[in-house]
Amino acid sequence: MASDYKTLTGQEFDRAAFESLLRRKVFLWQSFEPYGAVKGLFDYGPPLETLEAEVINIWRDHFIRHEKMMALKCSMLTPYEVLKTSGHVDKFADYMCKDPKTGEILRSDHLIKDVIEARLKSDREARGEKVEEAEEDLKKKKKQAKAAKAAVKLDDEVRKEYEHLLATLDDCTGDDMGALIKKHDIRNPGSGNEVEPPVSVNLMFQTQIGATGKEPAFLRPETAQGQFLSFQKLLEYSDGQLPMASASIGYSFRNELSPRSGLLRVREFLMAEVEHFVDPESGKKHPRFAAVRDIKLPLLDRKTQSAGGSTPTVTTIGEAVDTKLVDNETLGYFLVRIMQFMQKIGIDQNKLRFRQHMANEMAHYAADCWDCELLSSYGWIECVGCADRSAYDLSVHEKATGTLLKVREPLKKPVQITEWQANLDKKKSGPRLKKDLAKVQAALADLSQEFKEKCSITMEKEGKVEIPVPDLEAGKIELDKEIVSFAKETRTETMREYTPNVIEPSFGIGRILYSLMEHVFWNREGDAARCVMSFKPTVAPVKVLVVPLQKDVKFSPLIAELEQRLDDESLSFKVDQSGVSIGKRYSRNDELGIPFGITIDYESLEGKGFTLRDRDSTKQVRSNLDEILDAIVKMCKGKEGWEDVAKRLPAYEGKEEKED
Amino acid sequence: MASDYKTLTGQEFDRAAFESLLRRKVFLWQSFEPYGAVKGLFDYGPPLETLEAEVINIWRDHFIRHEKMMALKCSMLTPYEVLKTSGHVDKFADYMCKDPKTGEILRSDHLIKDVIEARLKSDREARGEKVEEAEEDLKKKKKQAKAAKAAVKLDDEVRKEYEHLLATLDDCTGDDMGALIKKHDIRNPGSGNEVEPPVSVNLMFQTQIGATGKEPAFLRPETAQGQFLSFQKLLEYSDGQLPMASASIGYSFRNELSPRSGLLRVREFLMAEVEHFVDPESGKKHPRFAAVRDIKLPLLDRKTQSAGGSTPTVTTIGEAVDTKLVDNETLGYFLVRIMQFMQKIGIDQNKLRFRQHMANEMAHYAADCWDCELLSSYGWIECVGCADRSAYDLSVHEKATGTLLKVREPLKKPVQITEWQANLDKKKSGPRLKKDLAKVQAALADLSQEFKEKCSITMEKEGKVEIPVPDLEAGKIELDKEIVSFAKETRTETMREYTPNVIEPSFGIGRILYSLMEHVFWNREGDAARCVMSFKPTVAPVKVLVVPLQKDVKFSPLIAELEQRLDDESLSFKVDQSGVSIGKRYSRNDELGIPFGITIDYESLEGKGFTLRDRDSTKQVRSNLDEILDAIVKMCKGKEGWEDVAKRLPAYEGKEEKED
Repeated sequence: MASDYKTLTGQEFDRAAFESLLRRKVFLWQSFEPYGAVKGLFDYGPPLETLEAEVINIWRDHFIRHEKMMALKCSMLTPYEVLKTSGHVDKFADYMCKDPKTGEILRSDHLIKDVIEARLKSDREARGEKVEEAEEDLKKKKKQAKAAKAAVKLDDEVRKEYEHLLATLDDCTGDDMGALIKKHDIRNPGSGNEVEPPVSVNLMFQTQIGATGKEPAFLRPETAQGQFLSFQKLLEYSDGQLPMASASIGYSFRNELSPRSGLLRVREFLMAEVEHFVDPESGKKHPRFAAVRDIKLPLLDRKTQSAGGSTPTVTTIGEAVDTKLVDNETLGYFLVRIMQFMQKIGIDQNKLRFRQHMANEMAHYAADCWDCELLSSYGWIECVGCADRSAYDLSVHEKATGTLLKVREPLKKPVQITEWQANLDKKKSGPRLKKDLAKVQAALADLSQEFKEKCSITMEKEGKVEIPVPDLEAGKIELDKEIVSFAKETRTETMREYTPNVIEPSFGIGRILYSLMEHVFWNREGDAARCVMSFKPTVAPVKVLVVPLQKDVKFSPLIAELEQRLDDESLSFKVDQSGVSIGKRYSRNDELGIPFGITIDYESLEGKGFTLRDRDSTKQVRSNLDEILDAIVKMCKGKEGWEDVAKRLPAYEGKEEKED
Repeated sequence: MASDYKTLTGQEFDRAAFESLLRRKVFLWQSFEPYGAVKGLFDYGPPLETLEAEVINIWRDHFIRHEKMMALKCSMLTPYEVLKTSGHVDKFADYMCKDPKTGEILRSDHLIKDVIEARLKSDREARGEKVEEAEEDLKKKKKQAKAAKAAVKLDDEVRKEYEHLLATLDDCTGDDMGALIKKHDIRNPGSGNEVEPPVSVNLMFQTQIGATGKEPAFLRPETAQGQFLSFQKLLEYSDGQLPMASASIGYSFRNELSPRSGLLRVREFLMAEVEHFVDPESGKKHPRFAAVRDIKLPLLDRKTQSAGGSTPTVTTIGEAVDTKLVDNETLGYFLVRIMQFMQKIGIDQNKLRFRQHMANEMAHYAADCWDCELLSSYGWIECVGCADRSAYDLSVHEKATGTLLKVREPLKKPVQITEWQANLDKKKSGPRLKKDLAKVQAALADLSQEFKEKCSITMEKEGKVEIPVPDLEAGKIELDKEIVSFAKETRTETMREYTPNVIEPSFGIGRILYSLMEHVFWNREGDAARCVMSFKPTVAPVKVLVVPLQKDVKFSPLIAELEQRLDDESLSFKVDQSGVSIGKRYSRNDELGIPFGITIDYESLEGKGFTLRDRDSTKQVRSNLDEILDAIVKMCKGKEGWEDVAKRLPAYEGKEEKED
């Protein structure tokens, strides 16, 4: 895959050079380096921290302000009970195997995959087939070279079995994986030891609130739960009107067992999540859908993937929703808005696609789910998930807490409803059922219409019925006609009560930033050492580079004037007065992605203005300071491009940029 | 205190009305309400979340961009070792007492203070003295009323002892407090039970990284440590030049034993911290000090406090630094910049002061420390700490990790240095000292000049010396002249190596936001129910309210046009089309602090423009849409005020605003 990945100018992507630049310009590093660094934790240096802030501001403007979403900030520390209800205590887990001799912890699926893939590779070598070197990255290759053994040919049948195993690994339970490890004698490749059977390990960071030990808590694994639990406040703030959406930008945590792939899988990460609440009976229409229906998207649907295809269909979102390729307007509207956001921040549109989840990838309650994937040198990476979570979350929290998490709205016309009812005798049921009363009441309310009708018949015949009560130890109870009766009753409803469905676009900011950095990285024609980060002016961490032609005190008053003017315009800038050539100074600041350069030369001293340089083309124009600042401000707001400025201001043919 | 606190218009501050507004307009609430809410954790709803974002953007612009600080984002999860070194494992703790019968955990100092204060109050009542009701807030009063007992008069001597006890409580150790509890029979006021002796409880949230149990970690209690550990990267990014500053906006955690006072003491909080690194031999000058030296600040110094005073001296920062009232220029420069930031976001300047720490309040390594305190109905609250941390943090981390956390710079002129040296014999010391070699070497290097000189004399006389080696079990070692010699040597130094000092302005964003909300809250003359939140346009969560005169489809096209134009200008807005009167609609949106209102009336339909209303004065002007939008944009950027707009655009005398 790596070798297929090209830079925006069509060059081979050199990951070593890219990573070297990130280190050199302190974009990021592993946290706590002096203490030996911690895997899966990263610090952002000035360029990346500022890039993130710019991207977040665009996200806020694009989603929260433009869509009138309700911004929320919820706590990261989350009580045990909340995540028990949401399912995270039981299901947010990975299987791991322990190497009992070294104490190492290995993710079971990674272990199986790594070992089986190595055997298949060895088999291909033994058969003299071409091994796809490109699939492996450098480090892996070196590691394998060290442990290289003679190539081993497998039986045709075994080879087939291995290939099937890899294709179906994602569907395996812990027991399945345990069986595979035993059957195929899969060992820790590092030590050669047998490993213990897979054990499920929860991936949340656990802690406790207060000092009593009575308030166990986790660091949240997603920002969604706090938003669901704020449902009533949100409904209040939007005067009871749906659709409505909340949005939250905040940190989540995942205690990865063995973090890999740098920024793509980390233990502490910034998310931006939207919860869009919609009436399920509205057909999930979106009021602004008409404005986007002719916009085209690259959609890789479920059917194409099942058939082994990986080429997305480019189609308008209108057609995709009309043909039910995308389930509904709201989901479709968000896919478009996600793509537009990616365009605004400078993602390469040829490295973006939407991939529909396969049925087995989705949570059981999800109605449909599309990921926005970005292509990087690691392959296609999920950067935004856009799921229809149906009414799941609000329902489970309502059930667990007894708090109403529903919309109640007056019906336009009152409705007559005729339904079977189970009525407990108020006087007798209390003394007879005692502490089980509430549980029995709840169970009766949950019975289906058909079951209640049957009960009515049984009661008529036998004078008693048995009903299921899941919360009782026995799981059921027998009730006689003295305390319960079943009857068909008609009532008039004036209010409608329903649980909204939720459509959730969920952004992994770190992954988007990493992909963006890869997308804007390239090097000048014929010079691998002259790297450029072509950040859009709207997101570039530093906007302007000021370079006096050479070290000369004569320039000082002009530098001071420029500094003052740039500050007045709230533009971030850097002055590079070091002794090296102008070319070299531009070149090393291209690595920071500074989009514009202002050169102060001897003509500037004579009042003949300054030159303004465009990072990407290295072209220059010359004008007075007012014009130059006006151009920069407009370009940094995304209101003009360099083409516009180059038309307006006279070109300047300076000496060729050279590093000498 | 509460009754002294006045709103910006000089009214009594009604905290109940204020809190009711915050609830009604969903500014904030306790997290996880459906699960019973958790103390010390708060969620921010749309108005407060957006206010925070605006305040943070101003902070970024005011400090990071304008001061060219290096923005950093460091991990919240922090390994045990880091916080062991920084001192937090041992010292970031509170003493608590357990009520063994109820299991309740009480902060020891709170417990003593509450009980003794209650006894003194009862004594004052018994003596018929006036009890200062104002000091107690409402809840406390009710609680006390419930538990009210007959007033008990104390002996004069006891009374004196109690008063002394309260004044010196802050200096007590855990044992001291244990003794006080025993001596004065202090019990849990809730249960009347005796409590267990004070135990130190660490206030950090503990967790672990990975699944091996070998990586204990905490949630950081401050954002500073990550910045110190990034020192080398920062120095690289600033080309080795000091002064330099890093800045970090991020969350910290404090596992309060019993959180009180709403937003003022919480378990999870946003901080903005600057670490300004400076050469201690530079006199801590600041290059921009000249530009601020005539600015006046309210300074409450140590001496005034010792004398029992609480009135700050208003003086220019230039004079304060000249007279050493404030220790140095850099500290002084930051005090001014902090005040300017507070002005920008709308803090009432009459409710701001700088208070110098008393000697016993400061960490042992701190050179000077000033808090920026804001007055709220809870009294004066520390919202920004501005401390000179000297070289403490970098030194301890360097010592613990062996990583160089110093600046090395070439000396302008090489320097001859003559010093006593201890030289180990290379051949013999290894075999003789074996594994202790490194420890002995380190101990020798740490010896003072005087000690080495003494050693030289002792060695001459006795042929052996004893030197302290703290890392050895014995704490010392005897060395003979075979393996060590002491001599006065002269060498030439070309490099200077030093540990920078750190000046740290540290902002508690939640406390600032809370104070700001109190500062901008008031109600219209003569109508306690018409509350207003006078947020400055620069920080107001929603900028514009659009109100059509009444419900009429004729207005729809104009509403749509306005929405489009406001969106084009990136202005956040709200349309209120509900059926109630204009006055009522303005009034209820004043509670959200929307600074500007645009009314669409029948004249608007005839092309006669719109009216623009100022929230604070309720005055209106009338003009066309271009002029109105231009005025709003300028006011939201802080470039114009309402006075400027009112001069330019014709006043509109509409019907008086009434709620009918």
